[in-house]
Amino acid sequence: MEIARLGEQALIQRLDSLLASSQAPRGNVILGIGDDAALVRAESGGYQLLTTDQAIEGVHFQRDWAVPTDLGWKALAVNLSDIAAMGGTPKTALVSLSLPPQTDVAWVDAFYQGLAEAAAAYDVAIVGGDTAAGPVIAVNVTVTGIPLVDSQGQPRVLLRSAAKVGDTVAVTGVLGVAAAGLRALQSGVTAPSSLIRSFLHPIPRVPEGWLLVEEGVQAAIDVSDGLISDLQRLCLASGIAAEVDAAQVPLHLDAVACFPQEAREMALTGGEDYELLFTAPPEVVQRVQARADLPVTAIGRVVAGVAGAVRLLDAEGKGIMLPQRTGWRHF
Amino acid sequence: MEIARLGEQALIQRLDSLLASSQAPRGNVILGIGDDAALVRAESGGYQLLTTDQAIEGVHFQRDWAVPTDLGWKALAVNLSDIAAMGGTPKTALVSLSLPPQTDVAWVDAFYQGLAEAAAAYDVAIVGGDTAAGPVIAVNVTVTGIPLVDSQGQPRVLLRSAAKVGDTVAVTGVLGVAAAGLRALQSGVTAPSSLIRSFLHPIPRVPEGWLLVEEGVQAAIDVSDGLISDLQRLCLASGIAAEVDAAQVPLHLDAVACFPQEAREMALTGGEDYELLFTAPPEVVQRVQARADLPVTAIGRVVAGVAGAVRLLDAEGKGIMLPQRTGWRHF
Repeated sequence: MEIARLGEQALIQRLDSLLASSQAPRGNVILGIGDDAALVRAESGGYQLLTTDQAIEGVHFQRDWAVPTDLGWKALAVNLSDIAAMGGTPKTALVSLSLPPQTDVAWVDAFYQGLAEAAAAYDVAIVGGDTAAGPVIAVNVTVTGIPLVDSQGQPRVLLRSAAKVGDTVAVTGVLGVAAAGLRALQSGVTAPSSLIRSFLHPIPRVPEGWLLVEEGVQAAIDVSDGLISDLQRLCLASGIAAEVDAAQVPLHLDAVACFPQEAREMALTGGEDYELLFTAPPEVVQRVQARADLPVTAIGRVVAGVAGAVRLLDAEGKGIMLPQRTGWRHF
Repeated sequence: MEIARLGEQALIQRLDSLLASSQAPRGNVILGIGDDAALVRAESGGYQLLTTDQAIEGVHFQRDWAVPTDLGWKALAVNLSDIAAMGGTPKTALVSLSLPPQTDVAWVDAFYQGLAEAAAAYDVAIVGGDTAAGPVIAVNVTVTGIPLVDSQGQPRVLLRSAAKVGDTVAVTGVLGVAAAGLRALQSGVTAPSSLIRSFLHPIPRVPEGWLLVEEGVQAAIDVSDGLISDLQRLCLASGIAAEVDAAQVPLHLDAVACFPQEAREMALTGGEDYELLFTAPPEVVQRVQARADLPVTAIGRVVAGVAGAVRLLDAEGKGIMLPQRTGWRHF
């Protein structure tokens, strides 16, 4: 069977079981494959978060859409977002770059400049990497970080598997902005720079991740593939279901102005916003809202039901059909 | 200018200076870009080694040469070799895989099985990864490890920059075997399985790395790009020169039998043997030889001279021309 038919989720589960049943050791691994980042007990005491992500020309980006500084920024930022989704602090990064041999050195310089800007902004040290020839530009970034810990030194992390029935579903910032920016780039539509910038230069929600942990939130994921898709993932990991009030999903005015017909669907399925989607008791969400520097919006609730099921409700509380494509397809 | 004209070494130096002059922090970084692995002070105390390496179809391997289990093994093994070249112990790995959507699931299963075998053999936990679509199969593996430490808890690592005039140059195992295996695969020549296996299923010299540190060796690199090329790199980092006695370079009998004309040049320039090339005072090399489970051969000496210069000598001590191509070209 082709992996395109299997799909990414099934592929990852397959690989995870294969590794689990193999002799590969799991000694110090507290959380392995299946969350935004792995959590490992360090040899010397303490804990470490680890995550890795790739961006491939023609799949995740087109060279003619984006200046290389933006690509460098984003290659690191998406990994920082995975650490943010665990409530952790990113520390070091390794960067592998494969490049067609005719790539201009100026392109590579600018790419690394964008990378260094993101590293400086989030106090991350780029400690190593690898360069190789390849048919297209492809970047792989690995980031290590540390989790917040409680007074006993135990890690306090945000998990996909910790959502509970009765929790409110909430999200930082606004959704569908990156998708609107991507649509503008793809279609050549003139769009406000806010949209393009959101797609090319995402802001990982690292301080917001800390705030969630501090206020007692336990369940979160970053919105990388799309709201519905990432919420399904969180619900599946938690063994619960969720309802989303479509009208409550926060949109960006520029996206609505530019794509009045599509803005809501972009917010539901668009992906790449790198906002934090989390669930917590209503009073915890209120405390987060009171302290956050950006809007935090309650968009639904966790309910009992088939694990992973997400229902979309209209303003009268009636079920709406989910969009056919609920998020980014990896294959 | 195209990166193919600049070359990999110059590109890495350029990126390193760019990062060094940027705002990117270096707080806990003891060794950054430029050795086999980075050495970082861990937040919780202790030290960590970090390395990353990619393998790209059509550049580093061909799908029809290698069964996927071998590719999985090798993708992890080459990173373990980088940790070995620091004298460290590998601990965790993250694996990014990009795949054409029509790739068969059985291929991916077998790839992960090979990976799991290497992980089990070296007690490494695979804690995460990423999968994505791409035009060719491309693998990126990141490995974390820990260095040996002295009685004060200070790290004892093998450095490229620690070679000293008067040191003997020595190497573990035999060289040119992987190159002979690759040549056999490329040309369709029937070759003993020892050669093919060496290319497809390299053995990272982790215990030998420990032995080097224990016996007081300070300078080492793994032979990934080719003996001359990697020795030049070690000499450059150490600011010294070296002489190699061509006749002393240890060859594999099967390689000599199969490629009598080319076996020596393969050993000098072939690469991918993943043996440890190191320098140390003669008496230290003798102690290593006495304790090692595999042959350790003195092949030359560190001399004063232009930093990075490597001279090849014949049996009478006269200079021989270096082969035109001294090692693997990354671009």
